[in-house]
Amino acid sequence: MGVFIVDTSRSPYAKLRPVSMSDVKLTDGFWSPRLDKLVNVTLPTMYNLLEETGRIDNFRVVSGRVKGGFRGILFNDSDVYKWIEATAWALVNRRNDQLIKVLNDVVDIVAEAQLPDGYINTYFYHRLGERYRYLRQSHELYCAGHLIQAAVACRRSGVCVRLYNVALRLGNHIVDVINPSGLLAVDGHPEVEMAMVELYRESGDKRFLEEAVFQIESRGRGVLRNFRMPGSWDAGDEYFIDHKPLKDLREVPTGVHAVRFLYLMSGATDVVMETGDKALWEALSNLWVDLTGTRMYVTGGVGSRHEGEAIGEPYELPNDRAYSETCAAVANVMWNYRMLLATGDAKYADIMELALYNAALAGISLDGKSYFYVNPLANRGWHRRQPWFDVACCPPNIARLIASLPGYIYSTSSDGVWIHLYIASEAKVNLNGGIVELKVNTDYPWDGEVKVTVNPSKEDEFTIYLRIPGWSRGGKLLINGVEQGVELKPSTYLGVKRTWRSGDEVILRIPMSIELIASHPHVLANTARVAIKRGPLVYCLEQVDNPGVDVWDIVLKRTCRLEAKYVENLLNGVVVIEGEAYELRSQGELYKSLNDIRLSLRSIKFRAIPYYAWANRDPGPMTVWVPLIDYYGG
Amino acid sequence: MGVFIVDTSRSPYAKLRPVSMSDVKLTDGFWSPRLDKLVNVTLPTMYNLLEETGRIDNFRVVSGRVKGGFRGILFNDSDVYKWIEATAWALVNRRNDQLIKVLNDVVDIVAEAQLPDGYINTYFYHRLGERYRYLRQSHELYCAGHLIQAAVACRRSGVCVRLYNVALRLGNHIVDVINPSGLLAVDGHPEVEMAMVELYRESGDKRFLEEAVFQIESRGRGVLRNFRMPGSWDAGDEYFIDHKPLKDLREVPTGVHAVRFLYLMSGATDVVMETGDKALWEALSNLWVDLTGTRMYVTGGVGSRHEGEAIGEPYELPNDRAYSETCAAVANVMWNYRMLLATGDAKYADIMELALYNAALAGISLDGKSYFYVNPLANRGWHRRQPWFDVACCPPNIARLIASLPGYIYSTSSDGVWIHLYIASEAKVNLNGGIVELKVNTDYPWDGEVKVTVNPSKEDEFTIYLRIPGWSRGGKLLINGVEQGVELKPSTYLGVKRTWRSGDEVILRIPMSIELIASHPHVLANTARVAIKRGPLVYCLEQVDNPGVDVWDIVLKRTCRLEAKYVENLLNGVVVIEGEAYELRSQGELYKSLNDIRLSLRSIKFRAIPYYAWANRDPGPMTVWVPLIDYYGG
Repeated sequence: MGVFIVDTSRSPYAKLRPVSMSDVKLTDGFWSPRLDKLVNVTLPTMYNLLEETGRIDNFRVVSGRVKGGFRGILFNDSDVYKWIEATAWALVNRRNDQLIKVLNDVVDIVAEAQLPDGYINTYFYHRLGERYRYLRQSHELYCAGHLIQAAVACRRSGVCVRLYNVALRLGNHIVDVINPSGLLAVDGHPEVEMAMVELYRESGDKRFLEEAVFQIESRGRGVLRNFRMPGSWDAGDEYFIDHKPLKDLREVPTGVHAVRFLYLMSGATDVVMETGDKALWEALSNLWVDLTGTRMYVTGGVGSRHEGEAIGEPYELPNDRAYSETCAAVANVMWNYRMLLATGDAKYADIMELALYNAALAGISLDGKSYFYVNPLANRGWHRRQPWFDVACCPPNIARLIASLPGYIYSTSSDGVWIHLYIASEAKVNLNGGIVELKVNTDYPWDGEVKVTVNPSKEDEFTIYLRIPGWSRGGKLLINGVEQGVELKPSTYLGVKRTWRSGDEVILRIPMSIELIASHPHVLANTARVAIKRGPLVYCLEQVDNPGVDVWDIVLKRTCRLEAKYVENLLNGVVVIEGEAYELRSQGELYKSLNDIRLSLRSIKFRAIPYYAWANRDPGPMTVWVPLIDYYGG
Repeated sequence: MGVFIVDTSRSPYAKLRPVSMSDVKLTDGFWSPRLDKLVNVTLPTMYNLLEETGRIDNFRVVSGRVKGGFRGILFNDSDVYKWIEATAWALVNRRNDQLIKVLNDVVDIVAEAQLPDGYINTYFYHRLGERYRYLRQSHELYCAGHLIQAAVACRRSGVCVRLYNVALRLGNHIVDVINPSGLLAVDGHPEVEMAMVELYRESGDKRFLEEAVFQIESRGRGVLRNFRMPGSWDAGDEYFIDHKPLKDLREVPTGVHAVRFLYLMSGATDVVMETGDKALWEALSNLWVDLTGTRMYVTGGVGSRHEGEAIGEPYELPNDRAYSETCAAVANVMWNYRMLLATGDAKYADIMELALYNAALAGISLDGKSYFYVNPLANRGWHRRQPWFDVACCPPNIARLIASLPGYIYSTSSDGVWIHLYIASEAKVNLNGGIVELKVNTDYPWDGEVKVTVNPSKEDEFTIYLRIPGWSRGGKLLINGVEQGVELKPSTYLGVKRTWRSGDEVILRIPMSIELIASHPHVLANTARVAIKRGPLVYCLEQVDNPGVDVWDIVLKRTCRLEAKYVENLLNGVVVIEGEAYELRSQGELYKSLNDIRLSLRSIKFRAIPYYAWANRDPGPMTVWVPLIDYYGG
C-alpha cells in the first residue's frame, strides 16, 4: 500500500511501479513553494468559490440540509470531486488541520447526497427519470469517475476514508446498470475508464476492470446517438470519439474534443496495463505518434480550435487562437505518465515534462488564485487569468496535478529505480524488499546539473535509471566524482547498474543551452519563426519586459547573441533569456505591394521569460514564436 | 423607373444614381457566360433543391395544399426569397420562359402563405403565439426583409409583380407592430433595414423608412435580451451588435457575426442616403476603415472565426481556418456598393471589386452547381464545394449577386456617367434628359486596357468618370487616339469632362503587373509570406497544377521571374501566373532545434491560378500566401 496516483504495483502489463507520494519529500525551490501555496491559498480559495457558486449546496439540497433546486451546469459536481482529490493529494506532504477539517466536512456533505441504490448526481437527482438517458451530454459517468478518483485519493492519502465506500457503492451501481447484458452505454465525456481501473486496483474487484474494458470496447460504434439530450449542442461523432472503435483508430480524429480524447487515451492505457490488449496498445501507440508528431503545441498543449474545444488537422496550430485548454495539458501529463509506466520509454517522459512545465503550469497564476482556461501562444494583452469560470474544470484540474506531483518523480522496476523528473527531493524507495534512500539535488529547471546521493538500506546491486531528456545535447555522468565514459543519449534512460553503497553519489551534468526551435513547414502559423527554449522550458516575449517596442515587432537573426540569466526578484525567481534582437519597422497598412514597402530594422535588446509565467504582471502583448529574419539561411 | 438593385435615384444624400440593369447588356467573355449558366443551370437546380428539401412545401403546408409540419431550420423561408430575388434579376437580361413560369408559381405559393394580417413565416405559422417573442434567434424580420427585397426585385424587373403586394402588406404589418409606441424590437440578424429602405424607395411610403431608422436606432441597447429563445445557442451581445448603439461604434466588435455586421452596415448606409444622418455616417466611415484596414482577407473576404461565424481581432486572419463565408463576401460587395453610391469615393469601388472577383466568386463552382460556404485561403484538399447545405444561405446569395451584376457597373451623377467595374458591355444611360450610349470593350479582368465608345443622343458636355483601380500603377489615357497628359491616380475616379460627340473613343490603358503582396506584420498567419495578385485577382497555388511538389512547400524569392499567360482551355479560360520557385526541403518533425535542421531548396517551376477558380478539379493542397525566402531583403 502506498499513496500512488496510478497504482501499477500489481499491474501485469506495466513496466514500472509507482513510488508512494508519502515517501517523497520535495526540497526544491520551484515546486515546493507551489505545494505550500496550493495548501495555503489555492485550495482554500477554491473551496470558498465552490460554496459561493452553489456547487456544494447542490449536494446539501439533495440531502435536505438546504432548500432549493440545482444551481449551475450539469457537470458541476465534478468540480467538487476534483477539489477533494487535489486536497487529498496535497495533504500527504503538507499538514493543515483546517483543510483536513474542511475536506472531511465536504466529503460528509457529498456522502449524504448518495441515493440508496448508490447513484449520486445533484443535477439528475431532480430529474431521476432522465438518469442515464442522455449520456451523450449528461456527463453522469464523467462525474462518477471524478468521484471515484477523489475517493481513491482520499483513501490512499489516508486523510479521509469515508468517501471510498461511497465510491464503491457508486461503482457497483454503475456496473450493475451499464454492462454487456444491461444498458449498452458510454459517456459522451470519457473519464470513468481511468476511475474504474483505479477502483479495481484499489479494491481488487474485477468487475470494475471489466466495466472499464466494456466502456472502451463499446465506444466508437455510434452508441451515443441513442443518448442524445434534446436541444443540446452536438458536434458530431468524431467530437465524442464515437465514430470508430478505438482499436481501429490510427490518427487523432480531426475535430475531437481535446480533453475527451486525452482522458480516453489515459483510461485505455490503464486498461492495457491490466489486460495486455495488444490491439489497443497498437492504437494508443499510433495515436500518440500522430498527436505529438502533428497536433501538439511546442508547450505540450493540445487543442487548436475554440470551436468544440477541439484538436484540429495535422499541423493546424494557430498561436493567437490556440485553445490549448489547461485541462488538456493536465490530461496530456496524465496520459504520458501512464504510457511511461506501461513501457519505461523516455519519449513519454519527455512529453510529460514538456506539458507539465509549460502548457499546464501556465494554467495557474503565481499567486495561486487565478487560472487560464485557454492558453494562447500569442496575445495582444487582453487574455488574463480568471479567479473562476462557469465551466470550472481547469482550476481544480491543475490543482490536483500539482498536488500529486511528488508521485510523478520516481518509479521502480524489478531491477531498479527510475528518476523521471529532476526535482530536488528526498525519497525512500522500496526495492526488492529493501529501502533505497535517494537524495536529489538540483536547480532544475534552471540548471541541468543533478546530484543523486544513494543510501540503500543494505549494499545491493541494482540499476538507477536516469532520464536523459530529449532536449539535451551531450553532458557528463560522474560517479563518486569520477567521470564515466558514457554517451548521454537524448530521450533515453541511462541505466547505471552497480553495487550501491551508502553515500554513493551520481552526478548528471546536462548543459542547458538556449535553443531556437523551428516547426514543420506545414505549421502555417510558424513560418519563418522560432520558439526559444532552454531545458524543459519554452520562453515567451512579454511586453512588460520590453518597453519601447511592441513584442510582436521583435525579430531575431541567427547571429543574435542570447544569454540566460537568473533573476531572483522576478516572477518568484526565473532564468530569463536576454540578448540582441531587432525591431522590425514595416508597413502600417493591412496589405501592400512588396515593392512599396520599406522594411527597416532597429537594433534592440530583448528579454524573454518562461511561458508559464506570463500574464502575472501588467497586461500587454506576448508571443512565443518570434520571426527569424534569416530563417532560410544566410 | 428602372431596374435598380439599390434605387438611389431620389435619395437626397446619395452622390450617385443607379443605371437600370435593363439598359446594360454584357458582351464580355467572363461574366456573360456566368449569367447564362445562372439561368440555365444554377437557378433551375437550386429550385429543385428548394423543393427536395421541403423549403417550398413549407409554404404549401401553410396554405393547406400539402399536409404536414414545418421541415428544416427556422430561417429556411429566406432561401426561397433569395432564390426569387436572384431569378428576378437574372431574367432581366436573359429570357427563359420556363424559369419565368417556375418563378411565378413559386411566388403564387408564397403569396398564399400570407396570413390575413400580413404576417408570413412558415415556421412561426405553427406557433403563432411565439410570433416576435424570440427575435434574438427567430430571424422573423430577417426573413421578412428577404421577402421584401425579392418583391422589389420582381417588381422592378417586371417579371412578376404579384409579390410586391405581399411585401407591402407584410411591411405594413411590421410597421404596425414594431414601432416606437408599439413593440420595441429588433431582429437578431439584421437584414430588414435594407429591405425597409428599399420598400420606401419603391413605394414612397415614409413609414418604411421610419421603420428602418427605428431598427438602426433601437439596436445596441440590449433590446435583444428581452427576446431570447429558450435553449438556443447564444454568443453574447457583441455577436448581435446589440452591446452598443451603432453611432457609438468606432471599431468592429470582435466576435461579431460577419454577415450580421455587414448587413447592418448596408442597411445603415441606405438610411444615411435618405436621412443624411451625420453621426451614423461617421460611425460607418470609421467602421469601414477598421474592417478593411485590419480585419479583411486579401480576397475581400470577411470573418476569421468558425466559432460564431465571426470577425476576429484586428489582424487575426488565419488562412487554413479562415471562415470568410460566401455570404459575408456578398455582403461586403453590397455594403461597399452603397458606400460608393453615397460618396462616389473610389476606395469603396476597390473593395467592391476585390470582394466580387475573389472572395464572392470563389463561392460558386465553374459548373454553377456547387458552393462554398466557408472559403479558406489554405487547405490540404478536403474542402470542396457542396451542392447544398442545411443552412443554405450562401448558394442563393451568390446567385443574386451575379444575377444583379449588370446593375453594379455604371452610375450617374448630376454631371456625368461613372464606370465602376470594367466589364465589356453596352449601356444606355439617362443623363440630364438625354441618353448616352456607352460601349465598353475590354478583356478585363485579364487585361487592363479598356476602350469606351461614347454615343450621346445629342452632342453634350458632361464628365465620364473612369475608375482608376487602387491596384493600378501608372497607365495612360487616350481620347480619340490622342494620349492625354494626365496622371492616373490609383483609387480615384478620373473625370474626363468634354463635349462628347457620337463615336468619341476613350482608351484607358492600365498595365496589369504581377504584384507580390505583403501583410501588416501583426497578421501572424502571413509572416514572411506573400500573396500573388494581378489586377483585381488574387492568385493561389493549387496542387493539380504543380505535380511533384506539395504546394505548401513551394517558396519564392524576390528574384524569381514570374509571367502571366492566358490559357484558354483551362478553367474556362484564365490568365495563369507561372515562374520560377523553389521546393523547400525541410525537417519532417513537428519541432526541432534550428541547429539540427538542414534546409535545402530545389529549383522548380510553378503555376498559380485565380483564387476564385480553385477546387474545380482534382482535390489537393492549395495556398494563397507563399513563403518568400528573402522577405526581409537580400
